[in-house]
Amino acid sequence: MPELRRDPVIGRWVIISTDRNRRPIGLTQVNKNYGTVPCPFCNGNEEKTPYEVMAFGAPGRQANKPGWRVRTVPNKFPALGIEGHLHRDGEELYDKMDGFGAHEVIIETPDHSLDLEDLDESQIQEVFWSFRERIWDLKKDSRLEYILVFKNRGADAGASLSHSHSQLIATPMVPMRVKQELRGADEYYEKKGRCIFCDIIASEKQKNIRVVEENEDFIAITPFASRFPFELWVLPKAHESDFEKIQKHQVVRLAQIMKSLLKRLNYVLERPPYNFIIHNSPMRFDGLLYYHWHIE
Amino acid sequence: MPELRRDPVIGRWVIISTDRNRRPIGLTQVNKNYGTVPCPFCNGNEEKTPYEVMAFGAPGRQANKPGWRVRTVPNKFPALGIEGHLHRDGEELYDKMDGFGAHEVIIETPDHSLDLEDLDESQIQEVFWSFRERIWDLKKDSRLEYILVFKNRGADAGASLSHSHSQLIATPMVPMRVKQELRGADEYYEKKGRCIFCDIIASEKQKNIRVVEENEDFIAITPFASRFPFELWVLPKAHESDFEKIQKHQVVRLAQIMKSLLKRLNYVLERPPYNFIIHNSPMRFDGLLYYHWHIE
Repeated sequence: MPELRRDPVIGRWVIISTDRNRRPIGLTQVNKNYGTVPCPFCNGNEEKTPYEVMAFGAPGRQANKPGWRVRTVPNKFPALGIEGHLHRDGEELYDKMDGFGAHEVIIETPDHSLDLEDLDESQIQEVFWSFRERIWDLKKDSRLEYILVFKNRGADAGASLSHSHSQLIATPMVPMRVKQELRGADEYYEKKGRCIFCDIIASEKQKNIRVVEENEDFIAITPFASRFPFELWVLPKAHESDFEKIQKHQVVRLAQIMKSLLKRLNYVLERPPYNFIIHNSPMRFDGLLYYHWHIE
Repeated sequence: MPELRRDPVIGRWVIISTDRNRRPIGLTQVNKNYGTVPCPFCNGNEEKTPYEVMAFGAPGRQANKPGWRVRTVPNKFPALGIEGHLHRDGEELYDKMDGFGAHEVIIETPDHSLDLEDLDESQIQEVFWSFRERIWDLKKDSRLEYILVFKNRGADAGASLSHSHSQLIATPMVPMRVKQELRGADEYYEKKGRCIFCDIIASEKQKNIRVVEENEDFIAITPFASRFPFELWVLPKAHESDFEKIQKHQVVRLAQIMKSLLKRLNYVLERPPYNFIIHNSPMRFDGLLYYHWHIE
């Protein structure tokens, strides 16, 4: 059983997981394909994953059979498990909880040869719809405080299978990095009465030196204090703290800008490894004035 | 000229450095040797590095000539530069400063074939003495707020040259991670009136399940909330916030325990890549009751 443990000095929670040792990793990425053979995410291999939790597919398609376009399944080697009760415990300096939570994989396409940015925009939209639907579903469990949606592309970015996929981890605590962001944004709001991300968008649009791309609903910038070369942030232009409240027209434009940005990265860097993370507000908050969801 | 930039949301300072693109990196680690040929850190190649700032060597040895055992030189491709004045600037949301600071390399041995743990303990002691001496020297510049001493071993851990070396970066701001640690330790002290690291040492000694090794002056533990498999912390048993106040008998025992721990890692993991960082208190503080220097 995995366990969540809190660093007593800085307060960071860490997932202590032993089962993930059994994952099919360790293969060197000598070409575009890595991971296990046959690929468990390919069309026709549905029985090689745990039972799906949702899928977009052809009308009348049976669950766990071919015919899907985007398919969400529990991670076979989960960092956290959804079974049982959440037990919180502490002894002297050390706080811990059961490794309670969810770890799911969003398989973005049945085609092994395609990357997220190669897909039709309509299919990329379904990937983002899947994120949205899964968050609404998991939100029903009040023990889950945060849902982290992310993608690792490439073995160097931490992916253990090359077939295009994203992941979701739902935890009973808010990650430290999110807490820092919430604290910083809250302090700014207390002082200025404005959302700091809205101010960043306004400032970047006015300066127009770090804006990479823009459409009606989203703006992509290289942040002022980038940690990595080619770091990109994508922010909705309208203030909104909760990703899962994304509207249809926004999903359309998010798919459009993400496809375009990833294609640009491929063009400049020759299909680089990358990570993206959706920065969202914690589940127990709703409609925060000081926080603004975005993708880094 | 490099620049320090502050993330407006979470307050993290980032070094924006363009010159480091010119470093000799990008070579795949196909064997133990990687980096440039001939190796600038080898005995006899002293003219391939900037002029040394200090060295331990044979009596009567000339600076920048062979005959040294441990040699400290400025990084040829520094993340920060020590020249000029420190200029702090801000515009709306965005704060920045000149990339003022120091970036030095501690070459741990003239012998290309040896790793830190292969050296005689007396030589490992000189590596730690070098850290100590450089900190005392750089501390004289009151613009420098923090001195980060660290080692990357192996290309996968970020080393660009295979010849055994450590590094030091002195900055005009305190890194965010250090601030978090100081804040957490201070809060604990306010509540309990004790150093949290001293309490961790006492608790681990009493439980004796995470103690890896111990000598008269140091204890090595695997922390309760490890972020990585085989994570190790080495703490001085006597309370002390400032690494640079380390005493002779402690340097002897620090060299002993570090050599032993690194040899154990080599034995179990077949010479793994690793990073170590000395967590030290900021330069402007002295003799803090709530902070305790250590190596992670």
